[in-house]
Amino acid sequence: MALPDVFTRYRPAIDAGLRQALDGGASDLYAMLRYHMGWLDEEGRPTEGASGKAVRPALCLFACEAAGGVAEQALPAAVAIELVHNFSLIHDDIQDGDTERHHHPTVWYRWGHSHGVNAGDAMFVLGHQALIASDGLAPRTALAVSRILTRACAEMIEGQVLDLTFEQRASVGVEEYLRMIGKKTGALLEGSLHMGAVIGCEDPATIEAMRCFGNALGLLFQVRDDMLGVWGVAERTGKPVGSDIHRRKKSLPIVHALETAEGAGRERLVEIYRKDAPLDEADIESVLGVLADLGTQQVCEAIADKQADRSVAELDTVELSPKARRECEELTQFLLKRDY
Amino acid sequence: MALPDVFTRYRPAIDAGLRQALDGGASDLYAMLRYHMGWLDEEGRPTEGASGKAVRPALCLFACEAAGGVAEQALPAAVAIELVHNFSLIHDDIQDGDTERHHHPTVWYRWGHSHGVNAGDAMFVLGHQALIASDGLAPRTALAVSRILTRACAEMIEGQVLDLTFEQRASVGVEEYLRMIGKKTGALLEGSLHMGAVIGCEDPATIEAMRCFGNALGLLFQVRDDMLGVWGVAERTGKPVGSDIHRRKKSLPIVHALETAEGAGRERLVEIYRKDAPLDEADIESVLGVLADLGTQQVCEAIADKQADRSVAELDTVELSPKARRECEELTQFLLKRDY
Repeated sequence: MALPDVFTRYRPAIDAGLRQALDGGASDLYAMLRYHMGWLDEEGRPTEGASGKAVRPALCLFACEAAGGVAEQALPAAVAIELVHNFSLIHDDIQDGDTERHHHPTVWYRWGHSHGVNAGDAMFVLGHQALIASDGLAPRTALAVSRILTRACAEMIEGQVLDLTFEQRASVGVEEYLRMIGKKTGALLEGSLHMGAVIGCEDPATIEAMRCFGNALGLLFQVRDDMLGVWGVAERTGKPVGSDIHRRKKSLPIVHALETAEGAGRERLVEIYRKDAPLDEADIESVLGVLADLGTQQVCEAIADKQADRSVAELDTVELSPKARRECEELTQFLLKRDY
Repeated sequence: MALPDVFTRYRPAIDAGLRQALDGGASDLYAMLRYHMGWLDEEGRPTEGASGKAVRPALCLFACEAAGGVAEQALPAAVAIELVHNFSLIHDDIQDGDTERHHHPTVWYRWGHSHGVNAGDAMFVLGHQALIASDGLAPRTALAVSRILTRACAEMIEGQVLDLTFEQRASVGVEEYLRMIGKKTGALLEGSLHMGAVIGCEDPATIEAMRCFGNALGLLFQVRDDMLGVWGVAERTGKPVGSDIHRRKKSLPIVHALETAEGAGRERLVEIYRKDAPLDEADIESVLGVLADLGTQQVCEAIADKQADRSVAELDTVELSPKARRECEELTQFLLKRDY
């Protein structure tokens, strides 16, 4: 499935904006931030490596354009949200004890926990700074956008707290899991489109429609992510098959299985998730077998479909340009079907 | 030495503002934040306990009033800076491995590192939110103040990185140590007065004078803190004599001693600071003896005096009301002489 144009056409502007935002000097702190972004290697030398998809800033710029504005006007907001997303990754890596990201040591693993905490904090501040230090927006707009950003951050952190709590709990329902990812992942994705729309137009209905479209995309994005973490193809995702099972993440498929499995299947699942030792291939096969028996993949697909349908339906109340409408539908289809 | 009126007259407004800012619901996250602020005990029951001095918000409101404004107008900024300060304390406790604050277990020690990181992150977001979600300020002013806050945060985090780096290094000079605390502690104190002045008036000279006054107070505050950490009286500070030596902090007295000591004194110091075992009373006495031989206390006093002189001198270029001027001088004298 081809990457929609939305993810490529703004890319040079996004990359330039990000680099400018982290161009704060030669201190150790900024070197850690540039390393995390994949621009420096472990010895501090510039890299040629590709970065991630930069989904959030692309959605922000797209929403601005789709709402009738000039995409570039939303660049400070787009840069801000990508930095805030990266703040959350740096702190997530500490909390999950992850030692690698994109095949490189994580910041905390390379520089220790204390500097990892600092690097995340700094990424956060610089995100807000990228937005409010810009002179391109009218103060009233900058303030409105800044409010959306901080509210999204607060929700994201609440979601992160819930996620940590869920990992400790014996059982979590599918509904409460979806509410959690709506905060942890959804809030920033919704915020991306919401901020872009506020910058792109003044029509409350259009702004609200784009926000709701973003809310559905956010859930869709994470549900698909959870599916790829279990059934993704290694050559496409860059992660081993069943990687979330290996990590014993309680992602959507496992939450569904723990909620619905009974008898021997349930016992096998609970036993494997409780094991002290690392899981082997037989464990992964066993879990995948339980999921297959329960039809978990079909359930996840149905949840994703529902959010995909909702996403474009949210736009039915407003008049977008034919191109914008088509691109919204492309975005939804891509997030629904992506295999990486 | 009596607490200046500046620290008492705004207190009810500050406390009410802080409680309102953290009144975000019944979730586990907000319970952690209220616990950190000293409003809940470990079982989640409301406490009667006294909080800290709340220096930063008081300075912010005072600066607004001294610059000719109405103190209450700066309340969102005052609340913001106190929450940001508390964010830094929560993360500092993780980084320093401190298990107690104000005689209670620290957040990370009570709920684990992961939740400690989250609680700090949330405090940070809510600080920004307290400022920009308020309707009391004109958008242009809110944005200007928000810029000051994020710049101060960025500097504070840079200072924190330097501090961690210094703790690993064999030698640190007094001058670079002062530059570090100017960032780590000074930036927020300077920001407090700067924000208040921007809200209180539109005169660039007054704003700049208050900012510079704040810069000097920030250094003065930390130098005095470092002195109290070594020579403070336990009954006044609430910490054991030589508490910073016990913790082997490389605070100003130790930085000065390591920079100037020679021969046997230097060897004793280096040896004690390198010990694996906890320090005993004889070690503390030994370090205090080296400091006495070097006249370190007098050197620290001279540094504090210099900043105190500079602080009020920064105000000479502007016309403040006689009351405001007198209160500025009282503030300086209090921060110079305080024994707690």
